[in-house]
Amino acid sequence: MALSEFQLIENYFTRQTVTRADVALGIGDDAALLRVPSGQALAVSIDTLVEGVHFLPEIAPADLGYRALAVNLSDLAAMAAQPAWATLALTVPRIDEPWLEQFSAGFFALAQQHGVQLVGGNTTRGPLSISVQVHGFVPETQALQRRGARAGDLIFVTGTLGDAALGLQAALKKIVLDPVPAQFAAQRWLRPVPRVDEGLALREIASACIDISDGLLADLGHVCDASRAGARIFVEQVPVSTLFHAAGNGNWNLPLSAGDDYELCFTAAPQHRARVEALFRRFACGVSCVGVIESMPGVRCQMNDGRSLVPAQRGYDHFVTPKS
Amino acid sequence: MALSEFQLIENYFTRQTVTRADVALGIGDDAALLRVPSGQALAVSIDTLVEGVHFLPEIAPADLGYRALAVNLSDLAAMAAQPAWATLALTVPRIDEPWLEQFSAGFFALAQQHGVQLVGGNTTRGPLSISVQVHGFVPETQALQRRGARAGDLIFVTGTLGDAALGLQAALKKIVLDPVPAQFAAQRWLRPVPRVDEGLALREIASACIDISDGLLADLGHVCDASRAGARIFVEQVPVSTLFHAAGNGNWNLPLSAGDDYELCFTAAPQHRARVEALFRRFACGVSCVGVIESMPGVRCQMNDGRSLVPAQRGYDHFVTPKS
Repeated sequence: MALSEFQLIENYFTRQTVTRADVALGIGDDAALLRVPSGQALAVSIDTLVEGVHFLPEIAPADLGYRALAVNLSDLAAMAAQPAWATLALTVPRIDEPWLEQFSAGFFALAQQHGVQLVGGNTTRGPLSISVQVHGFVPETQALQRRGARAGDLIFVTGTLGDAALGLQAALKKIVLDPVPAQFAAQRWLRPVPRVDEGLALREIASACIDISDGLLADLGHVCDASRAGARIFVEQVPVSTLFHAAGNGNWNLPLSAGDDYELCFTAAPQHRARVEALFRRFACGVSCVGVIESMPGVRCQMNDGRSLVPAQRGYDHFVTPKS
Repeated sequence: MALSEFQLIENYFTRQTVTRADVALGIGDDAALLRVPSGQALAVSIDTLVEGVHFLPEIAPADLGYRALAVNLSDLAAMAAQPAWATLALTVPRIDEPWLEQFSAGFFALAQQHGVQLVGGNTTRGPLSISVQVHGFVPETQALQRRGARAGDLIFVTGTLGDAALGLQAALKKIVLDPVPAQFAAQRWLRPVPRVDEGLALREIASACIDISDGLLADLGHVCDASRAGARIFVEQVPVSTLFHAAGNGNWNLPLSAGDDYELCFTAAPQHRARVEALFRRFACGVSCVGVIESMPGVRCQMNDGRSLVPAQRGYDHFVTPKS
């Protein structure tokens, strides 16, 4: 029996466990009706994942559901916004109930972790593609924008970089990893952890923030452009995992230029350095100081011995360098 | 020269003329920062248009840009919400500057009419698809929901029904129209007019409301289901245009069951009938009373002579009856 579009949505996307008091009207009408707390700005971000561009056809549907929400929550994290609601525009080539079951399970598991309620959406027939919009709250003056970096500010990165790219390379069979590292890298690539709590904790401290989706150099470049400044990266201070260190053979291109890690890159005045490091003792991901904002435009990479490094590739761009 | 994704967005989607005071931060950061007026609920709705499902490959990009926003504004109209902001997730197979120019011109022309500012979005490579989310304001108690219809309420429809379907049939060369009617029907199909002002005017009057995207019977069915009621439609009172009357040969299937007209279907207590009719004297689209809400579930169609009519098709469903 073919399910109608309406039943399809009903069946899978009303099965969530999160019910927020600020949702006056959720899924099922022409629009949702939502209450934004007074004194808070509404932060919104929308992102699309397209099969063959952002994910491989073989991806497990639960990973895809997780990832579609995670990359958007990462944008809210970079604004220091508290996640609240999501909408989902799902385009699928056909009705596949096990697929929908697993996709929604992956989506809702992450939504529940962050108290996010799905408040609207639609399902359409067509080539597989997922657009998610997330909505969060942040007092306007505490939002972390890209444009706040000043010359002299230190540049920090959460977690480690390059693992997701390693996971992708392994999935594409370009490299071979042992089972345990393979599992770690695959998780880092398929299930990026949005640094929501870390972003919230940076509200009074960071001067600018961005999440690393296109690669450190590219995304830091956006911060520099918005702040009309430049940056110097001390390459050997860029954090890599033990796995990456073992598998990476001293190649800095992935940590510097590969995307999909969804760590935060933020800047803070140098007098806040101890505060930043103390703050991150309570977060498992850790934090690293990787460079400094300079007044001269452009992002420069420097090795410990003073040599400049010119990375092979500067971030990922869907149109210029198609991936996968 | 290939433009990067970033430049692509910069070039076309920052060319809007609407600048709202309630946008603290617009396009270009990880998220937009928006101010919802106190005392107002935020109404949000997201819709996706996919090539070959919702529009023909031959559609003019300006019409597509217009339509992608129009179908979403229609959802806000059905909630009696005042439009404010939009986000756009655009997936295109390649960079085509004239196409982007025209698409954004069509989108922004309608946005300007309704004072809507584009506050975020992204552009992705992939099969042509457009997701737009709109955001509007409405005092929570004045929002028009689907579930408010009561037995005895009258059922009203704005404008005329069936014209968009006629336009589609002509585009598919299933019917041939004279040049003037062809132009009218094509406009009705390609450039549906969201009934935003009409929806706002119904705030104190209508008991339930929906926009007709899937066909009168299907959409009225949603109102009935949500209201735990049924409806009787007096078929000959369903409004059709002079063109449709001439071209339709007394076939009621299109006005009853074809979608894409984006007129409003709303209910109101019978004592409000004169008020509704007086109200619509200031709107060019006009209004028609087409039936009555009944307590028995289901939507019944009745002719003037008392006969029942069983329409050939009950609305449009992407998965059950693929269109175009």
